[in-house]
Amino acid sequence: MTAKNAFYAQSGGVTAVINATACGLIQEARRLHLLHPERIGKVYAGHDGIIGALTEDLIDTSLESDADIARLRYSPGGAFGSSRYRLGTLETHRAQFERLVEVFRAHDIGYFFINGGDGSMGAAWHLAQIFAALGHSLTVIGIPKTVDNDLALTDTCPGFGSVAKYVATSMREASFDVASMARTSTRVFILEAMGRHAGWIAAACGLAAEREGDPPHILLFPEVPFDHEAFLARVAECVEQHGYCAIAVAEGLCADDHCNLGDASLDRALSGSLSVGVGRFIAELIHTRLGYKYHLALADYLQRAARHLASATDVMQAHALGVAAVNRALAGENNIMLTLRRLSDRPYCWDIGSVPLDSVAGATRRMPAEFISPGGFHITEACRAYLQPLIEGEDPPPYRNGLPDYVHLQNRRVEKKLPGFSL
Amino acid sequence: MTAKNAFYAQSGGVTAVINATACGLIQEARRLHLLHPERIGKVYAGHDGIIGALTEDLIDTSLESDADIARLRYSPGGAFGSSRYRLGTLETHRAQFERLVEVFRAHDIGYFFINGGDGSMGAAWHLAQIFAALGHSLTVIGIPKTVDNDLALTDTCPGFGSVAKYVATSMREASFDVASMARTSTRVFILEAMGRHAGWIAAACGLAAEREGDPPHILLFPEVPFDHEAFLARVAECVEQHGYCAIAVAEGLCADDHCNLGDASLDRALSGSLSVGVGRFIAELIHTRLGYKYHLALADYLQRAARHLASATDVMQAHALGVAAVNRALAGENNIMLTLRRLSDRPYCWDIGSVPLDSVAGATRRMPAEFISPGGFHITEACRAYLQPLIEGEDPPPYRNGLPDYVHLQNRRVEKKLPGFSL
Repeated sequence: MTAKNAFYAQSGGVTAVINATACGLIQEARRLHLLHPERIGKVYAGHDGIIGALTEDLIDTSLESDADIARLRYSPGGAFGSSRYRLGTLETHRAQFERLVEVFRAHDIGYFFINGGDGSMGAAWHLAQIFAALGHSLTVIGIPKTVDNDLALTDTCPGFGSVAKYVATSMREASFDVASMARTSTRVFILEAMGRHAGWIAAACGLAAEREGDPPHILLFPEVPFDHEAFLARVAECVEQHGYCAIAVAEGLCADDHCNLGDASLDRALSGSLSVGVGRFIAELIHTRLGYKYHLALADYLQRAARHLASATDVMQAHALGVAAVNRALAGENNIMLTLRRLSDRPYCWDIGSVPLDSVAGATRRMPAEFISPGGFHITEACRAYLQPLIEGEDPPPYRNGLPDYVHLQNRRVEKKLPGFSL
Repeated sequence: MTAKNAFYAQSGGVTAVINATACGLIQEARRLHLLHPERIGKVYAGHDGIIGALTEDLIDTSLESDADIARLRYSPGGAFGSSRYRLGTLETHRAQFERLVEVFRAHDIGYFFINGGDGSMGAAWHLAQIFAALGHSLTVIGIPKTVDNDLALTDTCPGFGSVAKYVATSMREASFDVASMARTSTRVFILEAMGRHAGWIAAACGLAAEREGDPPHILLFPEVPFDHEAFLARVAECVEQHGYCAIAVAEGLCADDHCNLGDASLDRALSGSLSVGVGRFIAELIHTRLGYKYHLALADYLQRAARHLASATDVMQAHALGVAAVNRALAGENNIMLTLRRLSDRPYCWDIGSVPLDSVAGATRRMPAEFISPGGFHITEACRAYLQPLIEGEDPPPYRNGLPDYVHLQNRRVEKKLPGFSL
């Protein structure tokens, strides 16, 4: 019996540390291959994730040098390409699944590692069922990844700690700027943070505030129905008290019926800004009603790609999950998603656990009520205790010519053995 | 004769390194005060710059510890407050200037250091004339500062090198992200950079591209009239060729009559986005005409406050200018602005020169034609040779609890001797 190869797919939005997981996984697979060549062969990465499996577009990671694989640890983005492609169901897309079985058989793939969020875990579970039904044996291991931190059943998600460190640092820095200019210039600074369904990233901005009155003064979470009068009153109070007001808003605010402005003329005045994002909406609301000059920052992809400011804790966990995935698979575990488990806050101790794949899908973890301060505009001490360890430590990349020196892999392809396939 | 004290004002928009200049200036004044107590007394900083002089709101920097002054070197924002307040003319605002003379006499201020852009230099020159006319002797030294790099007569401006390093790093990181997702997600990424009148910051994004085809693929400068058809053709070509297109646009694009879209229906479709900034305008133009999914980042204050990613070269120059300002003043120079002079590109050698204060005001330095590539969408090798040394070197701040540990000075005030004064 020849050793089974592994297939690794990056899936969904990428992060500053998803390549650290790839790094750990490939390094560990190489180590175990050298020791036990009969147990595991090569690691093939899907070009653009699962699309690479469908189109037999496989990257042979064994052709990359050890040095370049090590450099993955500090390079952002998805080195093999990620995708938001969704597999259908066996009923509607039988040909697609038969194709996957065919590709995996053709390339002796017995291990399937999927590095993604809850949608990817659901898809992986579904895939495992179908492969079994089609008579192909496959070990399926999910590795969590999402900047949003909204994946259920894991204490945190690789990617989140680094975006948290980035937004808290950015908020602190911009607030130093605004504070020094407020008397004759900008009174209100707004940072729009990622987080469509949960306020974790906006909450992390709150770590920049260490003492009473420190910026940011207001955090707006999707978990708290937006009360614009209470909000405006709080903004005015901050400007009165501190000379300025620094605000972080999660992009998910107002994305649904929570956004009950209840004021038709205001609605009209703001309708243009609603279509260009919640940050602009909030900014225009303040400007229209309170008259303050504002500045707005949309960190957008900068926040989830900012490997230069990654959390060392986050990088370490992302890498460790890649290592663990290979070990779990070779130890015979199957149909699980690995998780991070918190053993204590101070000192921050953690280990790696697992949950059944089918328990993850569809469950969005939002901020619990005890993490949101009374009034809804800030985080509690319990939230700080949760968030603080996740941003600890720096792990800067090497620099060349004044810029981070990230790796471009060769990404040489595995020779195709099958006819083409259209998506 | 008692030693004259010094007044130091931060003026205009702050930067990641303006406090490094304050640090150098205060450290050097302390050193010279110890050696020659008869030549220079204390350094008083204006709270909110020149406003502090008018309102006799003076910060006694001698009450700060040496350690805290040293920490200014790595803290962003303006530690004493900056302002955009504009002095009038002697004809219209005589009382204001008489007040300044009164405050400076009351506190034995004989040295006036202004740390700002071209507007501040013009105001300082004006002030020097009026002080002379009013019979008060004052040594006036200007120290350049602006992230925009558009100050004439100096090779570069403290603040620019750090924002340049930040935007180039951010563009590289976001491009890694977009490149890995483009097949099924975002095709076009746009970073709106600062620069109302000149494209220096947008140009710096171009440093992220080292090889043919590297992102960013398109840079849009205020210096180049915007040709939307040529631009759209280039975007489509990039997406075709690379799968995605990364763009940096200076906020000054389209701020004037250059923005001749020449298409009434397009104008209407985009009119909403015009009011919310050029980045959104460009994004909507692409979406409307080419249909690509886009992401837009507005780095806003994040770029000019990002001390965590400052250029070591920039920090060194900012600090050296503060040191030099005190030395020039005590050596009897007057009515000058210090400049940075480039002696060679490779190796990058520089020294500090000076120009008469009245030669600086009103002259905006835009990108020269030889720095912009044929077609107008990128930078030339000559531009790279100019920009590259300015982003060299890292000088990270210390971290505490996972975040940069910036200094909050005590900012204790000098006792007032005069009646109040309303601005």
